[in-house]
Amino acid sequence: MIIITRKGVTDEELDHIRERVETLGLRTHVSRGEHRTVIGCVGDEERLRTIPLLSIPGVEAVHTVLKPYKLASREFVAGQGSRIRLGSCDVGGEELAVIAGPCSVEGLDMLRETGHRVRSAGAKALRGGAFKPRTSPYSFRGMGEEGLEILARVREETGLPVVTEVMDTRQVDLVASYADVLQVGARNMQNFALLSEVGRIRRPVLLKRGMSATVKDLLLAAEYVMSQGNPNVILCERGIRTFETATRNTFDLAAIPVLKQETHLPVVADPSHAGGRRDLVAPLSYAAVAAGADGLLVEVHPDPETATSDGDQSLDFGEFEGLMSGLKAFAAAAGRTLNPLAAASVSG
Amino acid sequence: MIIITRKGVTDEELDHIRERVETLGLRTHVSRGEHRTVIGCVGDEERLRTIPLLSIPGVEAVHTVLKPYKLASREFVAGQGSRIRLGSCDVGGEELAVIAGPCSVEGLDMLRETGHRVRSAGAKALRGGAFKPRTSPYSFRGMGEEGLEILARVREETGLPVVTEVMDTRQVDLVASYADVLQVGARNMQNFALLSEVGRIRRPVLLKRGMSATVKDLLLAAEYVMSQGNPNVILCERGIRTFETATRNTFDLAAIPVLKQETHLPVVADPSHAGGRRDLVAPLSYAAVAAGADGLLVEVHPDPETATSDGDQSLDFGEFEGLMSGLKAFAAAAGRTLNPLAAASVSG
Amino acid sequence: MIIITRKGVTDEELDHIRERVETLGLRTHVSRGEHRTVIGCVGDEERLRTIPLLSIPGVEAVHTVLKPYKLASREFVAGQGSRIRLGSCDVGGEELAVIAGPCSVEGLDMLRETGHRVRSAGAKALRGGAFKPRTSPYSFRGMGEEGLEILARVREETGLPVVTEVMDTRQVDLVASYADVLQVGARNMQNFALLSEVGRIRRPVLLKRGMSATVKDLLLAAEYVMSQGNPNVILCERGIRTFETATRNTFDLAAIPVLKQETHLPVVADPSHAGGRRDLVAPLSYAAVAAGADGLLVEVHPDPETATSDGDQSLDFGEFEGLMSGLKAFAAAAGRTLNPLAAASVSG
Amino acid sequence: MIIITRKGVTDEELDHIRERVETLGLRTHVSRGEHRTVIGCVGDEERLRTIPLLSIPGVEAVHTVLKPYKLASREFVAGQGSRIRLGSCDVGGEELAVIAGPCSVEGLDMLRETGHRVRSAGAKALRGGAFKPRTSPYSFRGMGEEGLEILARVREETGLPVVTEVMDTRQVDLVASYADVLQVGARNMQNFALLSEVGRIRRPVLLKRGMSATVKDLLLAAEYVMSQGNPNVILCERGIRTFETATRNTFDLAAIPVLKQETHLPVVADPSHAGGRRDLVAPLSYAAVAAGADGLLVEVHPDPETATSDGDQSLDFGEFEGLMSGLKAFAAAAGRTLNPLAAASVSG
Repeated sequence: MIIITRKGVTDEELDHIRERVETLGLRTHVSRGEHRTVIGCVGDEERLRTIPLLSIPGVEAVHTVLKPYKLASREFVAGQGSRIRLGSCDVGGEELAVIAGPCSVEGLDMLRETGHRVRSAGAKALRGGAFKPRTSPYSFRGMGEEGLEILARVREETGLPVVTEVMDTRQVDLVASYADVLQVGARNMQNFALLSEVGRIRRPVLLKRGMSATVKDLLLAAEYVMSQGNPNVILCERGIRTFETATRNTFDLAAIPVLKQETHLPVVADPSHAGGRRDLVAPLSYAAVAAGADGLLVEVHPDPETATSDGDQSLDFGEFEGLMSGLKAFAAAAGRTLNPLAAASVSG
Repeated sequence: MIIITRKGVTDEELDHIRERVETLGLRTHVSRGEHRTVIGCVGDEERLRTIPLLSIPGVEAVHTVLKPYKLASREFVAGQGSRIRLGSCDVGGEELAVIAGPCSVEGLDMLRETGHRVRSAGAKALRGGAFKPRTSPYSFRGMGEEGLEILARVREETGLPVVTEVMDTRQVDLVASYADVLQVGARNMQNFALLSEVGRIRRPVLLKRGMSATVKDLLLAAEYVMSQGNPNVILCERGIRTFETATRNTFDLAAIPVLKQETHLPVVADPSHAGGRRDLVAPLSYAAVAAGADGLLVEVHPDPETATSDGDQSLDFGEFEGLMSGLKAFAAAAGRTLNPLAAASVSG
Repeated sequence: MIIITRKGVTDEELDHIRERVETLGLRTHVSRGEHRTVIGCVGDEERLRTIPLLSIPGVEAVHTVLKPYKLASREFVAGQGSRIRLGSCDVGGEELAVIAGPCSVEGLDMLRETGHRVRSAGAKALRGGAFKPRTSPYSFRGMGEEGLEILARVREETGLPVVTEVMDTRQVDLVASYADVLQVGARNMQNFALLSEVGRIRRPVLLKRGMSATVKDLLLAAEYVMSQGNPNVILCERGIRTFETATRNTFDLAAIPVLKQETHLPVVADPSHAGGRRDLVAPLSYAAVAAGADGLLVEVHPDPETATSDGDQSLDFGEFEGLMSGLKAFAAAAGRTLNPLAAASVSG
Repeated sequence: MIIITRKGVTDEELDHIRERVETLGLRTHVSRGEHRTVIGCVGDEERLRTIPLLSIPGVEAVHTVLKPYKLASREFVAGQGSRIRLGSCDVGGEELAVIAGPCSVEGLDMLRETGHRVRSAGAKALRGGAFKPRTSPYSFRGMGEEGLEILARVREETGLPVVTEVMDTRQVDLVASYADVLQVGARNMQNFALLSEVGRIRRPVLLKRGMSATVKDLLLAAEYVMSQGNPNVILCERGIRTFETATRNTFDLAAIPVLKQETHLPVVADPSHAGGRRDLVAPLSYAAVAAGADGLLVEVHPDPETATSDGDQSLDFGEFEGLMSGLKAFAAAAGRTLNPLAAASVSG
């Protein structure tokens, strides 16, 4: 950590600052410039984070040298990035992990039909919400446990692993008993109680970036989960909130290559929420893969016009098949494979 | 709700759109312009919100006519705004509700000393965190139940009601058994499970605006709590996240008068988090009161330099007394009183 | 345009609103709902934009039906999008228009070398600033007219058309006498005097999106240029300003397909400014092309470490060649060609 | 400046970095930590700003120690802040400088009437646009020189100095020949050619903050003007662009006290543009003064409903008189006077 002092800092103030730092076991190097004096602090930077350094008289600014996350950092894992098993696919491996399905589970028939269709088109997992976060308390909030049961049943029939959201610390065990991957939604990315709780289970966690979360915030949220013992975190870029209103969110595409540099964790993109418009799902998907995403999370519904949630951004089956077909050349250009196991069909 | 159709919409598409709307029991009025045809929908707009209207072929844009919140809306309560009892003070009444105390409860002595000092200076309630949301899993996360016990003890000694944060649905009853007001933090403003849970208890809720929440989102979050049966919600503006880095957050001062117009609920401001800098607490407090805030939430610590969290933005006792003294003239200018009960002292 | 009235609007207010609208030659349709009355206005919406409708007593909200831009709108041109000639390439055509070169022209030798190298690698035009917008008045602000002369000379030697920025209404004629395309920078996107001035010349204009400009603002800025008689506007997405600090700007990738839908004008992307980091240029370029961009604007410098501006985001020659090589498969996947004329060399 | 190197930086890289820095005449101090090596650079930091340090192999991050602006910085002027003469008032002095008038000059009668009324109510200067920046090329763009003549005439009749916008480098002399203060609008805050040009004249400049400008950007823009020889810059906070849509812009109130700390220049606020709503002008004005603003820029129109621009946010005369009346107590609380010369009337 580096401490920059105010112009005209006194010797007493300098001594006091150094003393505060050295008390914690770090060494200090003082470098006097013409206008400012700089104090370099060498040692366990983590200890300094706990001190309100800007509160010490004479301090003007503080710069950190090390990153605040450890387990999630790229440097933590030597060699290639981490891979997380998702059914027949390794998220973070060569094959693109396409996770598709409706925003909400609305019933067995629609989910079964969706499962079979997206599987045929090359999806590797089925998504679907049983507990739905809704901005208004008057909107449909999901089928609850009945939705989980439907997901499990369709998994049996299709062989597709199931990804579903958990919103409440009290439901983590319940959801984990049905789902293969637990999704933590954007609005809960800094629900630290929930992050800790999903860190205690064995299921992989799909962690969506919050609407106002920086890349650093997202990695610290992953660090919460990992520091509880669960190393299997998949990060998801789904757009941030900005002044632009032409799209539901602003898809921060650059976050994908930035994350691939900063962390060893796999990174997927959610083009459905990022754009909020059906017609943007394909170009955003192609771009995400071109930028290095390990997978996609795509909303697909048998009849988007009647969907109970997110219908405006859901693809119908034909559109999803078109997407997967269009995606192939981009996946190949990015050195990825798409759907190589299509032949090895599970008897549905 | 008003539906604007695409240029060149066909009669079949128009008929289909109208049919979808009329099936839900609303009437439609079609107005054909030179370039666009507009369909006005009259009836229960709420039903239309559940349909993905943009998914219907021929639809270009949709505008809502009514506000999505009801219980929280200004129109819901005739006459003056709601008042919420907080010890000797009515939040939303003439007297300014100043809530002061440390970011975190760090022990009995520091909290007791803080309680007595802020009370003498005119604070109406004591804040202090027992469960702390921290961006990093490696930061101090609060004393937990022991912190709650300390809060309760200092309440007994000072007569000050206690405001403290709840972060987990599983802890709502526990926190409510100690606290007078439950705070829902900015990062949990859209933790809908938690909102529902605090809606089931009888304690007032202090709901902080999320970093990327619009005024509308904040009111919908309040609606969540209220729709569960708890009408006592105090809203708190504490800054939003923008590109500006000179301050920790961007204090959205205009949200205060906007909220006072949109809702009957009381509105307080948190100048400590909004600016993130001790030197900004006074000007932001004065401004908040000038703009119509019903109260303030101020971080005060016996020795900010040693605080376990938020030290950089905490006032020491002398600074808090200076703030309260400076605030008087602004409160008077705003038609508010400050601290009229200072004489009626509880024997501490 | 649609006018929504306040709850409890009086008949007198309604009559007054209608009168204001009808005076301008539009017809009004009144639709009374349970809670709100809505007035649809049919006719020349443009006239209504000049009235402060929200100032009229009884008005609560106003929604526009038509887009505020005409010449720039997709509907204005039937069939395919517009193509703008740039040397041997049509921007907006099948071939990707890659425009490359240094941030600033720093001398003849470096520009000549850059011109030959980027041309060999497949660039279709040469960029380079002679007049530089710099945040600090103490930074290098470009070589001025000498820089323009160097650009013209390198054009002669390489056959590459030249793109350079104009910052001052007084310099439009001067810059146009040397350059093939005039660039209007992000900071001048709403310098309306400059927009009008470049609208009066015949050279194509490369219009960069402002840091806080919406897609609509960008199209209105293009409309300024076009409404003066210059239809040749190339739009450029180069990132917007948000809270994220991991990148210099936030690349709004979705703006590319949104613009391709909204307008017939060609759209290019600037991955250098969007990310502000050399290592992000390739993934952002691949993604832009995958999302439908018609071209790229890439900063290339013989020795980025010594560049007078933007060195941190400039590619060296080897990196640019790597980018062009990596781009080929993505271009093909997007149905684009890259560099088909490499063989037909101009004798440099 | 402080350079932080990548993990595993080699000795050769370290030597190369130091050599680059030392070549510019600075000294380097190397501090080796457990994980990172830090290089402190002592000497003329300005020289280092010209180098793309992040481009040098082995460099991970760079932190600056000094502020990039000098003439505008608080430290540049000893003692109290600068005062800029505006008619009978010193902007930056004890008296609040209220500048009022219509968005656009629409004719002699309306401006004359406005001038007399705002003067009676206590305004110290008259604002009014002759050249108007408009988002759409089809909107009214001002009366031009005729508007300037009207402004000058009303100044003669009322004694009020005149503030008006200049948008084009070619019009600086013309506008300066009529106006007392030249306004540079938000959209031109980084029109560096214009900043340089208004730096060459003697008139004070009212510099409005750009919609996506940080406080630092605003001060660098002021530095442009000042570095050309014109020290008389008045800064104006008028709201920034964020995701919130309840207001036209987000009024960054905290920028006022931050600016008062960072610079010696006077700071005024524009509550009309910040909120974009008539009903917000008063609370935002009160708050700005409470937070330390030296003055206000308020839109006033004889009949806002018919204004050619910004009618929705303009006050009528009665509302402006109410604002000035309400402001008195807040001004007094802030240690300011309002309108002490009301008696010393100029014969209009």
